[in-house]
Amino acid sequence: MSQMNPLCMHEDPASVATGAAARRLFRDPASPAFLQTTGMAPGFMQASPIILPAELALDFATFCQRNPKPCPLVGTGNRGEPTIPTLGHDLDLRTDLGGYRIWRHGELVDEVTDISDLWRDDFVAFAVGCSYSFEAALMADGIELRHITQDVCVPMYMTDIPLHPAGPFRGHMCVTMRPFAPADAIRAIEITSRFPLTHGTPVHIGDPAQIGIDDLATPLVGDPVEVRNAEICVFWGCGITPQYAMLQARPEIAITHKPGCLLVTDVPSRADALALPGLAA
Amino acid sequence: MSQMNPLCMHEDPASVATGAAARRLFRDPASPAFLQTTGMAPGFMQASPIILPAELALDFATFCQRNPKPCPLVGTGNRGEPTIPTLGHDLDLRTDLGGYRIWRHGELVDEVTDISDLWRDDFVAFAVGCSYSFEAALMADGIELRHITQDVCVPMYMTDIPLHPAGPFRGHMCVTMRPFAPADAIRAIEITSRFPLTHGTPVHIGDPAQIGIDDLATPLVGDPVEVRNAEICVFWGCGITPQYAMLQARPEIAITHKPGCLLVTDVPSRADALALPGLAA
Repeated sequence: MSQMNPLCMHEDPASVATGAAARRLFRDPASPAFLQTTGMAPGFMQASPIILPAELALDFATFCQRNPKPCPLVGTGNRGEPTIPTLGHDLDLRTDLGGYRIWRHGELVDEVTDISDLWRDDFVAFAVGCSYSFEAALMADGIELRHITQDVCVPMYMTDIPLHPAGPFRGHMCVTMRPFAPADAIRAIEITSRFPLTHGTPVHIGDPAQIGIDDLATPLVGDPVEVRNAEICVFWGCGITPQYAMLQARPEIAITHKPGCLLVTDVPSRADALALPGLAA
Repeated sequence: MSQMNPLCMHEDPASVATGAAARRLFRDPASPAFLQTTGMAPGFMQASPIILPAELALDFATFCQRNPKPCPLVGTGNRGEPTIPTLGHDLDLRTDLGGYRIWRHGELVDEVTDISDLWRDDFVAFAVGCSYSFEAALMADGIELRHITQDVCVPMYMTDIPLHPAGPFRGHMCVTMRPFAPADAIRAIEITSRFPLTHGTPVHIGDPAQIGIDDLATPLVGDPVEVRNAEICVFWGCGITPQYAMLQARPEIAITHKPGCLLVTDVPSRADALALPGLAA
């Protein structure tokens, strides 16, 4: 996510072996700020948190339900409680992320590593599924992911695919793009069909212009990747979609993760996402 | 659902060809009361509606999100609006069901065919996925469904599998049971894996006692079916689960469908349920 944060990778992320270990690391005030979670806690689902005032919570849950491919809801907190019981033990959303973004009326106003002083008893937390889960499954199958090969962040684009609105949440779908040889594209579709709660099958293959993407070289977020001859572009719904819908809703306050600083859960990502709710023992 | 309603079938349901036609039929005051939707509008998704006051809506949506196998949310209405925009055109939840059950404080108080006089501007409507969608896919594959062969309603059981609570909604999972020869059981698991929003893969196979079912002969709802030698019992999460959770929550008022009188939608059921939201043209 180079445009928003040049630090996409960090040293030896896999040495952080579990979701609980990742959260303890981020909770420690002595840890470096804005550590990225890419490659961290292999085998554990990562998710994008979004924290909203309760008055918007039902609309947001409805928005996600109506747009399951870009906005797969994998966790919901109780009103006022800074945890998501189905995603982790001893999970504290006020401290357990590597970085937070604070939005007021749709404008980014701050980036912090702790939101304890901002937490309110009318906050409701949500977690949206992330493509890291299915990327691990693709790589385990031997499929090359170009952005991994090139050591950059996956490119994300805004499309002209309209979303079903709910309350003030509305907009168009954001997608990630990964190029594959045709045989790998087919296999990637087959594999991701098993991850319905982390975006599932692609929303488009082939010509970017058909979904309103004019130029692959200029992603909305992330880095452009090489598309080789005879490769097919494959587009999946992207978990930044609800953040852009949130910007349009312009809530009095919203808190999201800083790009790359995802919530690392205790849920095994190797499982079909529908293993949810099921924490690792 | 013989214990609750002896009329499980009705004449020539497939002559009602579409979701829209089914809803027009139920909307007509001259139609017979409590017509069942089994076999009606083949190829269109049916769903279980549940209508609650807004003060409980976020808790109910959260409950469904946390328990996706028995409670797959396939539609959510806007506050006060008696429709679900992603499930049908010209869909009026006040009139378009064959029968409704009215619950007050968790007690069944009435069964009616029209709720226009009960509708309130703080009601929120939900629709939960139904196994009819995957049953059609199983039959299309040539798999025998015993309750269809025996011309009875699928047996449903209460288990000891605990649900993740949300607000006042809590309880244990209800399941349906279908017996198969081993090869068909395997194929049924394979096929239903493609229907994550209509219960997906089974939650259990084999010994009923392992999930707290003492006696297959006495289902909670529906009719017992024959289990032949060398057959394996296959158990799926059941859409009556949220209704039982609702009974425990004892809301001031709740409205559900009368068993067998489901909401017939315009969404193709032959598609992977994740085709949602996508109405037939």
